[in-house]
Amino acid sequence: MTETLCFRNIGQLIQADATSQPGVRVRRNCALVVKKGHIEKILKDSEVKASAKYKKVIDVNGCAVVPGFVDCHTHLVYGGERKDEMVDRMSGVSYLEILSKGGGIHDTVRATRQATEATLFDQAKARMKRMMALGTTAFEIKSGYGLDLDTETKMLRVGQRLRKALKAPVTLTYLGAHAIPPEVKRKSYVEFVLESLPKFRGLADGVDIFCEKNVFTVADLRLIFLQAKLLGFDLRAHVEELSHQGGSYEAARLGALSCDHLEHATPKDIQAMHAAGTVAVLMPGVTLFLGGTKQPLVHSMLDARVTLALATDCNPGSCPTYNMQTVIYLAANLYRITPGQALAAATYGAAKALGHHRLYGGLLPGQRADFNILKTGDYRDLVYYFGENFIDQTYLGGKRVTGGKEPAGF
Amino acid sequence: MTETLCFRNIGQLIQADATSQPGVRVRRNCALVVKKGHIEKILKDSEVKASAKYKKVIDVNGCAVVPGFVDCHTHLVYGGERKDEMVDRMSGVSYLEILSKGGGIHDTVRATRQATEATLFDQAKARMKRMMALGTTAFEIKSGYGLDLDTETKMLRVGQRLRKALKAPVTLTYLGAHAIPPEVKRKSYVEFVLESLPKFRGLADGVDIFCEKNVFTVADLRLIFLQAKLLGFDLRAHVEELSHQGGSYEAARLGALSCDHLEHATPKDIQAMHAAGTVAVLMPGVTLFLGGTKQPLVHSMLDARVTLALATDCNPGSCPTYNMQTVIYLAANLYRITPGQALAAATYGAAKALGHHRLYGGLLPGQRADFNILKTGDYRDLVYYFGENFIDQTYLGGKRVTGGKEPAGF
Ligand SMILES: [Zn+2]
Ligand SMILES: [Zn+2]
Repeated sequence: MTETLCFRNIGQLIQADATSQPGVRVRRNCALVVKKGHIEKILKDSEVKASAKYKKVIDVNGCAVVPGFVDCHTHLVYGGERKDEMVDRMSGVSYLEILSKGGGIHDTVRATRQATEATLFDQAKARMKRMMALGTTAFEIKSGYGLDLDTETKMLRVGQRLRKALKAPVTLTYLGAHAIPPEVKRKSYVEFVLESLPKFRGLADGVDIFCEKNVFTVADLRLIFLQAKLLGFDLRAHVEELSHQGGSYEAARLGALSCDHLEHATPKDIQAMHAAGTVAVLMPGVTLFLGGTKQPLVHSMLDARVTLALATDCNPGSCPTYNMQTVIYLAANLYRITPGQALAAATYGAAKALGHHRLYGGLLPGQRADFNILKTGDYRDLVYYFGENFIDQTYLGGKRVTGGKEPAGF
Repeated sequence: MTETLCFRNIGQLIQADATSQPGVRVRRNCALVVKKGHIEKILKDSEVKASAKYKKVIDVNGCAVVPGFVDCHTHLVYGGERKDEMVDRMSGVSYLEILSKGGGIHDTVRATRQATEATLFDQAKARMKRMMALGTTAFEIKSGYGLDLDTETKMLRVGQRLRKALKAPVTLTYLGAHAIPPEVKRKSYVEFVLESLPKFRGLADGVDIFCEKNVFTVADLRLIFLQAKLLGFDLRAHVEELSHQGGSYEAARLGALSCDHLEHATPKDIQAMHAAGTVAVLMPGVTLFLGGTKQPLVHSMLDARVTLALATDCNPGSCPTYNMQTVIYLAANLYRITPGQALAAATYGAAKALGHHRLYGGLLPGQRADFNILKTGDYRDLVYYFGENFIDQTYLGGKRVTGGKEPAGF
């Protein structure tokens, strides 16, 4: 008996990589062989031999198998909720009004500073387990609700523990430059972030900054990124979300793996991202939840062959969702991209945004066996029958982590 | 032993009626007494006596109980799917191009004419069961994919059988005037619809028309509505969806129960709807799925005290979703209305659009015991944690029809 599993009778097997861009590759009637947590090979279903010595043969009944979703931009370690703020915003109170009363992100900073490491860990773990049950198999997690050395460190330590506890790929990002704490000047806070960078080596994989009007400037981004780059951090940036500041152009020029949000990015920014191979991380759930109407120039990005990625941005203020399936159908509908383009962005593109597209995200031989068996034989149903949960089973490193609990429906 | 059930330890019990408009009434820490399928009374939880002789006492553990969702505008009896068309549209092909090649609604008409009554029934029943599992307890179903006497009759007969089979409130609407069949002139088709009206007495409760540029005119609407009114049908209309034609003003003047879509309705139309007590049925899923950017003047409707309703519009071309929870969070986010306003529109408002707000939709004493126990103690989570399925159990006429199959998550 070997350690090899065979998933057979796969109606559609979906792969995504550089050659399938901007969409996915659809393989029909095939079988997937998994060995030691990785994908060994893909066969035609008719090539599966009864004599082969698999530990287990799993018949998926013609259903579709898609790569596990990669949620490449989250703030899922946080204290508190901000439901009252949501209702206030929907009743017409502006975000700036909320912020000026000490609400908004400051609420979350207070709650996160107060929370014990154990509480943050338990709550974030429950969130990630729910995300997994909805098909996500790889995560990025940012700090940024501490804005002081102790709390930022606490958040990233929680991230490290989550990585071990869930045995899932978790990329950690130091986002000290998320907001300016009350009663601190921007300049001196930027100095604090610069000085703190070496302390986060080994704790975080990357460094991020929120470049926005009244928050951090493009000059701050340059200072922090140059220093972070010297220290070996990956670079990613919140840019051009509420206004155009030029952070995406600068981040791309400095070799950022991803530029995120991009509602106000210009064709020039997009060209710079293309030249640098920087991935565009789009988060349609945020636009929806904040009532935004400006969409990023997604078709210019496609024309310029910039790789698209999708993420939840999971956070208590601007997008509390856990569901990458929701993000996929929102992206397809709001950006007018095909289900294949949206799915590729949620898997291969998001893995590339984390620099890990060789390790996972494509359902390719040699990659981790992180995938979802859907309740349907057609992956396009993720967009067509929107609002449905299509995850039947989720496999992480070849092991089933969730599934079989909800009825197939139709 | 009586036939009385007591649901106790309810964290939030949500009621909706004319006096709670445009939102909901939230009652905390209470108990719900159900007798013979109807709501007998609501008590404070502390008033539940151990000595009372209930057939069963159900502890809901502090969760929220909300009225069952009322999906007051659907085309859920149909043949075929239109997934290729969706992908074409997202690839940039226009709807008119699709239609001119004999696709679009004509595809569904062909498939529905060809389908046997048994197939239509089985497929529609599966859809409705899935809708119920997602919290819907009352339905409206339109004909309109036959465009001939036989098929329109077949669709409504299926609706009658669904009503019996699911023991759920089902309102049936004759929508002969949904589209003009190929190779028939508009005028002669309108004559056919007028002549057919008496044949649908007893089979349909209401009559509907799609009033739109290149489809049916306001004059057609007037002719058909006057005749339908004489025959005792309720009136509802697809109006001002893709352009402004003035159908909503005319429909309201003629006493329509609801005007549906309304993206292009003007303040004058809204005033007419207010004066007539006509309900505004909004379907944000359609706007999203078709990539529309024009939203109805929802805040003008609220200011004018027009009752809002929400619905899926479930159909294979412009909104294949089954999920009223999705519709609720899309409405709150896209229209910038509160979770309470959205929930009231999906329950009381939708019941009023069907003329049945005294029978169900409000969780009021005397009404049908159609309700959902949520997985959370705060109904606002329906919007805040969007993309989640919050239905723990659904009760229809006091009987549990779905539930307990999915993990609570968090
Ligand atoms: Zn973010
Ligand atoms: Zn309709």
